[in-house]
Amino acid sequence: MPDLTGDSGGTSDEVRAVAARAREAATNLAVATRAAKDAALAAMADRLLTDGPQILAANAEDVSSAEGSGTGAHLVDRLRLDQERLAGMAQGLRDVAGLPDPVGEVVRGATLANGLELRQVRVPFGVVGIIYEARPNVTADAAGICLKSGNAVLLRGSSSAAASNAAIVDALRRGLADAGLPEDAVQLVPGRGHEAAKALMRARGLVDVLVPRGGAGLIRSVVEESTVPVIETGVGNCHVYVDAAADLDMALRIVLNAKTQRTSVCNAAESLLVHEAVAGEFLPMVVPALQEAGVLVHGDERFAALAGVQPATDDDWAAEYLALEMSAAVVPSLEAALDHIRRYSSHHTDAIVTGSQAAARRFVAEVDSAAVVVNASTRFTDGGEFGFGAEIGISTQKLHARGPMGLPEMTSTKYVVTGDGHIR
Amino acid sequence: MPDLTGDSGGTSDEVRAVAARAREAATNLAVATRAAKDAALAAMADRLLTDGPQILAANAEDVSSAEGSGTGAHLVDRLRLDQERLAGMAQGLRDVAGLPDPVGEVVRGATLANGLELRQVRVPFGVVGIIYEARPNVTADAAGICLKSGNAVLLRGSSSAAASNAAIVDALRRGLADAGLPEDAVQLVPGRGHEAAKALMRARGLVDVLVPRGGAGLIRSVVEESTVPVIETGVGNCHVYVDAAADLDMALRIVLNAKTQRTSVCNAAESLLVHEAVAGEFLPMVVPALQEAGVLVHGDERFAALAGVQPATDDDWAAEYLALEMSAAVVPSLEAALDHIRRYSSHHTDAIVTGSQAAARRFVAEVDSAAVVVNASTRFTDGGEFGFGAEIGISTQKLHARGPMGLPEMTSTKYVVTGDGHIR
Repeated sequence: MPDLTGDSGGTSDEVRAVAARAREAATNLAVATRAAKDAALAAMADRLLTDGPQILAANAEDVSSAEGSGTGAHLVDRLRLDQERLAGMAQGLRDVAGLPDPVGEVVRGATLANGLELRQVRVPFGVVGIIYEARPNVTADAAGICLKSGNAVLLRGSSSAAASNAAIVDALRRGLADAGLPEDAVQLVPGRGHEAAKALMRARGLVDVLVPRGGAGLIRSVVEESTVPVIETGVGNCHVYVDAAADLDMALRIVLNAKTQRTSVCNAAESLLVHEAVAGEFLPMVVPALQEAGVLVHGDERFAALAGVQPATDDDWAAEYLALEMSAAVVPSLEAALDHIRRYSSHHTDAIVTGSQAAARRFVAEVDSAAVVVNASTRFTDGGEFGFGAEIGISTQKLHARGPMGLPEMTSTKYVVTGDGHIR
Repeated sequence: MPDLTGDSGGTSDEVRAVAARAREAATNLAVATRAAKDAALAAMADRLLTDGPQILAANAEDVSSAEGSGTGAHLVDRLRLDQERLAGMAQGLRDVAGLPDPVGEVVRGATLANGLELRQVRVPFGVVGIIYEARPNVTADAAGICLKSGNAVLLRGSSSAAASNAAIVDALRRGLADAGLPEDAVQLVPGRGHEAAKALMRARGLVDVLVPRGGAGLIRSVVEESTVPVIETGVGNCHVYVDAAADLDMALRIVLNAKTQRTSVCNAAESLLVHEAVAGEFLPMVVPALQEAGVLVHGDERFAALAGVQPATDDDWAAEYLALEMSAAVVPSLEAALDHIRRYSSHHTDAIVTGSQAAARRFVAEVDSAAVVVNASTRFTDGGEFGFGAEIGISTQKLHARGPMGLPEMTSTKYVVTGDGHIR
């Protein structure tokens, strides 16, 4: 979790000064060619590798402080870098270089009745702020995606990764300089305290958009405090609904995959709904299979009648466990499933398993989530799986971008109107 | 200006109750067919005409209170309805019915390598809040656009138009009922005080997006206080830059049109920049012409040397006069014009007049505004002129929508993922 408390420096003036330099750099980046940006991404990748020893040394400091302060092994693992992870970060930058440049894409265009030519063209936002959690590889990923989409980026990572992030950003800035692009296109937000985070969130006019990546508490805090427009990402209380007309073997495979293939991610399933017409057959299939995979089931009365199932509380229906736990209920109808999802879903990804075209069609029409899935795992809601090649996060809001955000989602547009003296 | 102060009712609980009913209605509207929505728009138009006497009587109350409290004639005129304006409102609803339905449009789609079918489909936001100024015709326009795009709407108009708005909303709701759609798809926010406005701005989860339409003060206040995502509209400090390579007769026509064709609108020009290479010839052309049209010029030293020009203060460069006034400066170069626009523009619409392809190309690339215009009047930045058929406002922010917002801009999207048992 990013550190939004504490008092260690980063005054509002310092943050605004950094943001103003980012804006200068953004003016330059907005007109940089794809070739120039791709060359910079390659140079940044090179620097990550040549500066590897310094980065790993800085990371060792962070890891040792984290261990010293009793951080759990799982979080320490997320923090730790090695040669392989460093190579992965460099490859990530090269992969982004290989993607099409969204800037300059003509989204729509027409010649109006009066002869005016109208084009709507993709342009960068300008300055993007990213507030994120412990993993230092996000530092390079986010910088690469922002650079390719023509945006300067202000990075605010977790204080637990401060030394790693500083070393990575140093390397990335050297790469920018090698390629002749402004170093200030990639900067860390100075200071680790709440004042610095708040200054970033209030830097309206200097920062064009903020993307918080982290837990629900962080995102709520950014949404509450920010006057800069925010794109919310990633809280996922995802459902799998097994319909009366489901192929139960398929349903079993999908539930197990959605819950257990990777538990710490926002597109993992957290809640299972089963139509009562198939409950008698499906519950004895799915509960032991989940338990065998190590999943603790928090069930309603019907589920809790099975051995090892814990009775669910109201909190369970809304819980994003991000762990080997799952809430589970029997519903009397498709309508009841839709009502349950409407009430408890975080509107990230919800899936139906059904052989009924009518049920699938109704579920797709009525479930108001970023992704609605028919007969597949919730785990597919992902920029890589969707073929976007790079992803800055998964938006769970409705404004601007919804679902996995690739390079085009990191841009705005402008209208270009061309005439030969047209007046009204 | 909408009333954001005062204390006349509309508690947070009352506002939230109204928003909750809107959300219910939105669930229904989201799956309404185009035919059902168009029939409702026609029924709403019919009701505006049959309920005309009640609406005009309510409007007469508003007009008489406004006159009684010494409101200026210009504002009273904006407030006043008559049979013709009522017919215009009804026709506006019928026009919206004639536009294509944005809901259900497939924005992109692909079959992924693993056979999963992916579609990104337009869906309504859900519940839209509109906070707006005196003109009561906005009540019907906004309701029509929101209904067609499948959204329920919460309307908060000015207290000076309260009786008119209540009568119009009554008629619109009767039209909805006539057509079998939920009346709660169109509601007024209860209460006129700041508490009610604040409750609307804090109704995150119940309201999906807020669109403030009004002056800079209103918009700043909404942006500062709202936790609901906001689309900013309409503040326009628009520039016309007359380049060294401009056709000066064309430049004169464009400056006059942009400044004087209609002054109270956000796409009217407020500031004139002239390249010094043509200043000697152009200033004696443009200043008398502007003055003859009644425009007070606030000029820099070069302009102020001409008779009747008032010396500009620093405030003038940022001013949105919305009146027969214009700031004016001579600049030494295209770069200087770009710097000036970068510093003072509200990023709504900025125009260049030039015969130089290089200058046009650079201006288009570097001016970071919702619309960048070459050799035409700034007055073309408008949903009607752009061929959108209906417009809820002109966004000056970069997130979600930028420039004139038509029906598609009042929607979000969702991904529909269809497989036959796909797992990762």
